[in-house]
Amino acid sequence: MFLKNTWYVACQAEEITDKPLGRKVCNEAMVFFKNAKGKVSAVQDFCPHRGTPLSLGRVCNGQLVCGYHGLVMGCDGHTVSMPGHQVRGFEPVKHYPTLERYGFVWVWPGDPNLADPGKMPEFEWFENPKWAYGGGLYHIRCDYRLMIDNLMDLTHETYVHSTSIGQPEIDETPSRTVTEGDRVITSRFMEGIKAPPFWKMAMRANDLPDDATVDRWQICKFTPPSHVLIEVGVALAGKGGYAADPQHKAYSVVVDFITPETDSTIHYFWGMVRQFKPEDTALTAQIRDGQGKIFSEDLEMLERQQRNLDENPERKLKVLSIDAGGVMSRRVIDRLLAAENSM
Amino acid sequence: MFLKNTWYVACQAEEITDKPLGRKVCNEAMVFFKNAKGKVSAVQDFCPHRGTPLSLGRVCNGQLVCGYHGLVMGCDGHTVSMPGHQVRGFEPVKHYPTLERYGFVWVWPGDPNLADPGKMPEFEWFENPKWAYGGGLYHIRCDYRLMIDNLMDLTHETYVHSTSIGQPEIDETPSRTVTEGDRVITSRFMEGIKAPPFWKMAMRANDLPDDATVDRWQICKFTPPSHVLIEVGVALAGKGGYAADPQHKAYSVVVDFITPETDSTIHYFWGMVRQFKPEDTALTAQIRDGQGKIFSEDLEMLERQQRNLDENPERKLKVLSIDAGGVMSRRVIDRLLAAENSM
Amino acid sequence: MFLKNTWYVACQAEEITDKPLGRKVCNEAMVFFKNAKGKVSAVQDFCPHRGTPLSLGRVCNGQLVCGYHGLVMGCDGHTVSMPGHQVRGFEPVKHYPTLERYGFVWVWPGDPNLADPGKMPEFEWFENPKWAYGGGLYHIRCDYRLMIDNLMDLTHETYVHSTSIGQPEIDETPSRTVTEGDRVITSRFMEGIKAPPFWKMAMRANDLPDDATVDRWQICKFTPPSHVLIEVGVALAGKGGYAADPQHKAYSVVVDFITPETDSTIHYFWGMVRQFKPEDTALTAQIRDGQGKIFSEDLEMLERQQRNLDENPERKLKVLSIDAGGVMSRRVIDRLLAAENSM
Repeated sequence: MFLKNTWYVACQAEEITDKPLGRKVCNEAMVFFKNAKGKVSAVQDFCPHRGTPLSLGRVCNGQLVCGYHGLVMGCDGHTVSMPGHQVRGFEPVKHYPTLERYGFVWVWPGDPNLADPGKMPEFEWFENPKWAYGGGLYHIRCDYRLMIDNLMDLTHETYVHSTSIGQPEIDETPSRTVTEGDRVITSRFMEGIKAPPFWKMAMRANDLPDDATVDRWQICKFTPPSHVLIEVGVALAGKGGYAADPQHKAYSVVVDFITPETDSTIHYFWGMVRQFKPEDTALTAQIRDGQGKIFSEDLEMLERQQRNLDENPERKLKVLSIDAGGVMSRRVIDRLLAAENSM
Repeated sequence: MFLKNTWYVACQAEEITDKPLGRKVCNEAMVFFKNAKGKVSAVQDFCPHRGTPLSLGRVCNGQLVCGYHGLVMGCDGHTVSMPGHQVRGFEPVKHYPTLERYGFVWVWPGDPNLADPGKMPEFEWFENPKWAYGGGLYHIRCDYRLMIDNLMDLTHETYVHSTSIGQPEIDETPSRTVTEGDRVITSRFMEGIKAPPFWKMAMRANDLPDDATVDRWQICKFTPPSHVLIEVGVALAGKGGYAADPQHKAYSVVVDFITPETDSTIHYFWGMVRQFKPEDTALTAQIRDGQGKIFSEDLEMLERQQRNLDENPERKLKVLSIDAGGVMSRRVIDRLLAAENSM
Repeated sequence: MFLKNTWYVACQAEEITDKPLGRKVCNEAMVFFKNAKGKVSAVQDFCPHRGTPLSLGRVCNGQLVCGYHGLVMGCDGHTVSMPGHQVRGFEPVKHYPTLERYGFVWVWPGDPNLADPGKMPEFEWFENPKWAYGGGLYHIRCDYRLMIDNLMDLTHETYVHSTSIGQPEIDETPSRTVTEGDRVITSRFMEGIKAPPFWKMAMRANDLPDDATVDRWQICKFTPPSHVLIEVGVALAGKGGYAADPQHKAYSVVVDFITPETDSTIHYFWGMVRQFKPEDTALTAQIRDGQGKIFSEDLEMLERQQRNLDENPERKLKVLSIDAGGVMSRRVIDRLLAAENSM
C-alpha cells in the first residue's frame, strides 16, 4: 500500500552510466537510461517482443536497445524500430516520468498524465555550495512504513546506536509531535548534556571543544510519500541551542528518502547535508562512512521485525507517545491513499 | 504434530551467555536469558511494543531489554518497565517454563500451568562423576519423527556409517522391540564378531585388544516426546556380553534429544556418555569429534528423505520388522497427542 | 507441458560412473545406474521402504543398493531383496526405458510399454570417425520452449553474442522457415561478408585466410520433443556457399538437446560436431571452451526472461517473422501433446 502519484527517488544520479539500470519501484519493474539529450528516461523493464528485461540491453546514441534481438525502445514506451521489422503494431510498455534533481533521479510510478514537477519537494541545501552532501543506498526487506516509524522515533538511537549517536538523555527527554497539513514534525530538545561520540567528532570538525556541555536537538520532518528529513545538531550550552550562532554549534540534516521496491522491501537512500567545511571532501567521506556504519545497525532490526510481524499477524502492537511521529505519518499516508484510490 | 505439554531440550547450558538466545521450539519463537538469580527464563521472542525480536536486545542486571526502544521484559512475559512510559496496559507475551538440568536448558512449550518438573526424565549418569559426556548440536530439515525412526532402527549403520560403526552383522541379527508403558525398547545382541573401527578405538581406550572377538549390543530406548537413549558396547566374547564385568568391555550411552523447531525442522542434540576414563578430557573431545563426523552422515539422508516424502505425499511407505521401534514410538506419540488434544 | 512418450537426453555417458546418478527429467525424479551387463537403467529415485533417494546409495555387482537400509532395487522398479526381509509385497517404483547412444544416455519418461528404440533420432556424425564432437551441460531456470525459441531465431547472436558469432548481417538477412512433418527448418544464407571472430578461428583451423570474404549459412532444424540441430559454416565467397567443396569452407553442426527438468527448468546439453581435423583433440577442447563461453551468455537472458514472463502473465508477446521457427516448433509440440493426451 503505497502512494503512486508522487515522486520517489529511483537512484542516485551517478548510478546512471552509459548502461541501462534496472530497478523495481512500487512493484513496477523499471529501466532507466539517458536519452540523446542526456535526460534520464524510464520505461517498463520488459521488451514487447519477447518479454526480456530491457535493462540487459545497451544504450546506443541515446536509445535503449534490447540485448536479445535489437528492438529499439523509445522514452515513451513505444517501440522505435527493430531490424527488419515494422513496429507500428507493437504494444507499448509503460513509461514513467522522471526528474533529475538534487543529485538523484526521481520517478513518478503512477499515472504519467498526473506527473507534476511542481510537486517535487524543495530542498534548499542540495544546490547550495555552502552545504555538502554525502550518502548511500541500502536495500532492506521491510515495509517502507517500518522505516518511517524508525526515523520518526529517535529513542531507538539509545539502544540501536548506543556507541555513536545514542545516549540516555534521548530516552529521558519527551518529544513533541505536530502535524502541519501533510507534514509531520517530531522534535526533541535536550539541554546541558555531553555529546555522544559522533557529535564529539562533529564538534572537533567545527573547532569546538568536544568535552563541552551542549544542548542537542532532533527535529524529524516527514513529508509524503516517505521522505524523512531530520535536523540534528549540538550547540555549546546556553548559546541558544537550535537558534545559536553558527560558530557555537555543529549541525546537519539527515536525509532519508525511502522508496518502496515491493510491499515488503525498500530502497533506502540515506545521507547527510552539513553546513560546516562543505569544501572538505575528506570530511564528507569520513562522515558518510560513519553514518553508513551507524545506519547499517538498523537493518537486522527492521528485517527481523518484519518477519516477526509476518509470523504474528493477529498480534496488535502497542502505540506509545514516542510512536506519535510514525502514527501521524501513517495517518497522512492513509488519507492520501484513500484520496488517490478514489480518483 | 508434536507434544507441547512436555520438556524439550532448548539448548546446551553453555549457549546461554550474557546475551539473549533466540531459538524456535515447536513453532514457538522463544528467547532465553539468565535472570538476576542466574536462572534461565524463556519468553516469546516478540516485543509487545513494536514486534521486534527481543533476542536482538541485551540482558542488563538479569532483565531482558529490547534492543530497539529499551522495553524491559519480565520472566513472566509481562513488561516490567519502559523509559518514560507506563506499562500496565501492555499486552503480555507468552512465557515458557524452563529447567536447567544435565547441562541443558529444558523448556515446556505448552501450557505453563501444567509444567511439572516431576515429568523431567531422569538420567543417572549426567551428574555422576564416574561418567563423562560430550556432544553437539545439528540443525536438520526433517520431521522429528524421521530422526526417531532413524535411531530406533540401527540397521542403517551398516550403510550410512559403514566405515565407523556399521557392520554386516547388524543387518543379519534380528532385533526385538517391546513397549513398556510410554517407553519403547529395541534391542539387538550380536555374538562372536569383530569390532568395527569406532569400537576398536574404544577397546584400545579401555586397554582391550582391538582385534579380539567380541559380543556387541545396541539397546535403543525411546521416551516421549522425542528422546532416544541408546546403550551400546562391546565385550570380549564369552565374558557375558552386556552383563560382562567392566574390565572386559567398552560401553557407553548415545544420547539423542530431538527438539522440533518447526513441523519440518529439528534441533538435534546428540552426544555420548561413557564410563571409561571419565576424567580424560582429550578422550572426550576425540570421541565427540568422531561421533560428530559419524552423525553428520545422516543429515543429507534425512533431509533428502523429507523432500522425497513431501514430493510424493500419495506414496505409502513399507513397514518392515526393522521399523518396529519407530512404528511403536509413533504410536506412543499419537496416543499422547490424542490425550493432549482432548484436554 | 512437455511430451513424455519420447526420448530425452538424460545425461552424458561419462556422467554414469560406479555411483548412481540422481536427475530429474520431466518432473520425474530418476536414478541412473549401470547394471551387471554394463547397461544403464533408470528407476524412480525413491526407496519403497522409507522414501529416501536411491541415488544416495551405491551400485554393487550391477545392483542398486539403497544407502539407508540396504534394499536392493531391480532395473524394473521391483525390489530384488533386502537383508532379513521378504520383499514380495513391496510396492514397485516406476522404471524408465533407457538407451545409450551417441555418447548420451537417453530416457523415455512416459509409458514404458510405448518405448520404441525406433523413435530415437538418427545422427550420422556422432558415430562417424570423420567427425568430432565436444560439448557440455548447463542448468537453466527457464521453460524449455524459451530455449527452443532462442535457437530457432539466431538474430539474437547479433546482440547476445556480438563479440564471437554475432554480426549485423544476421539481422539484415531474412530467414526462411518451413515445416516438414514434425520437423521445422529455419535457414539463413549471407553472402559476401566478413567472418566474425569465432569463424575466423575456424577458418584458420581449416587453413583458410581468416580475412577473406565469405558466404555464411545457418540452418536450424527442430525435431520433437526439443532437439535443435544447427548446420553452420562459412565458405570462401563464390565457391558455392553451403554446397562448396570441403577445402573452401569451415563448417560444423551445433547440437542442442534440451531436456525439461521441471516446468520451468532445463538441462541444456550443448555441443558441436565438426568435420575438420576430427583427430585434433586439443582443437576439440578449444572449440568446446569457446562454445561454452558463448552459450553461457544466453543464461541470464533466458532466466530473466522467464521471471519477467512469470511476473506479467497477462502480457501478450509480439510474434515477428524472425519468430517463425519457434512458433512453428511450438505448434508441432502442441499437436503432439494433444495427441499424447488423447491416448
